[in-house]
Amino acid sequence: MGGEGRAVGGAWAPRLAAVDDADELGRLLHDFNTEFATPTPGPDVLADRLRTLLAGPATFALLAGSPAVGFALVTLRPNVWYAGPVALLDELYVVPPLRGRGVGSSLIEALVAAALRRGVALIEVNVDEPDVDAARFYARHGFRGGDAEAGDRAFYLSRELGG
Amino acid sequence: MGGEGRAVGGAWAPRLAAVDDADELGRLLHDFNTEFATPTPGPDVLADRLRTLLAGPATFALLAGSPAVGFALVTLRPNVWYAGPVALLDELYVVPPLRGRGVGSSLIEALVAAALRRGVALIEVNVDEPDVDAARFYARHGFRGGDAEAGDRAFYLSRELGG
Repeated sequence: MGGEGRAVGGAWAPRLAAVDDADELGRLLHDFNTEFATPTPGPDVLADRLRTLLAGPATFALLAGSPAVGFALVTLRPNVWYAGPVALLDELYVVPPLRGRGVGSSLIEALVAAALRRGVALIEVNVDEPDVDAARFYARHGFRGGDAEAGDRAFYLSRELGG
Repeated sequence: MGGEGRAVGGAWAPRLAAVDDADELGRLLHDFNTEFATPTPGPDVLADRLRTLLAGPATFALLAGSPAVGFALVTLRPNVWYAGPVALLDELYVVPPLRGRGVGSSLIEALVAAALRRGVALIEVNVDEPDVDAARFYARHGFRGGDAEAGDRAFYLSRELGG
């Protein structure tokens, strides 16, 4: 794990988040959802969950800058089609004043490096259809739809339970 | 766990797969990908992986009928927005001669019951755009796109690593 956090350079070079980063990451996640008018349980609940998740094997995060100006939050799960885990990029966020300056790209590069170190063969992300900037960003970074050869897209669907 | 596998009735009532079902499930997964001309590492490799995965906490499967005529393969991962895990329906398959007879629907009902027992608040699935029958099937079972209120869809993207 000697290479963690040294994958890219620059003023906001991403580093792997430690459990102690849970408070800062929780605040950023809360800001993220607040910006996009999405419900959030609040920074403290998020930080509590992150303390547990970041200590476990199925979640990791990358933070850009100190104090952090952006982050990538990633979860791993097993998949029968691959020998190693599959990684899902759950959230990628850069604070508004620093967008368009390569922070997101450096987070993706650091994510790929961290994923490779964990034996990951596939990284996934779900993008809302109206978010065409995000779609372009991920296309530029090698992400493709369901059947790249045929040019087909794939849809992400979900169903909430109970409540 | 006393209710596992008794969620729905009928001749092909789904039951939770045990580790000993890995060989049968591996064969069905292989048949699934062969039918859709998708690469497969072969039934033996799949069975070996399933023996490991089904013994762990992050994968479960439901089998319909004995011998099985269909299955649902599901993986769990943590997610910071929920107290419990999120479930992804990786694969849902019914053998060709028995399609259109409710086996898939009974697998979804059993999946929801099994997910609720595990504290799951969200079930996800990714559907290729040309597969309109699957999209209709999941819509009928309460699955929605990225922003259900706005009627927006969400895309699933992925990037393979290494080679």
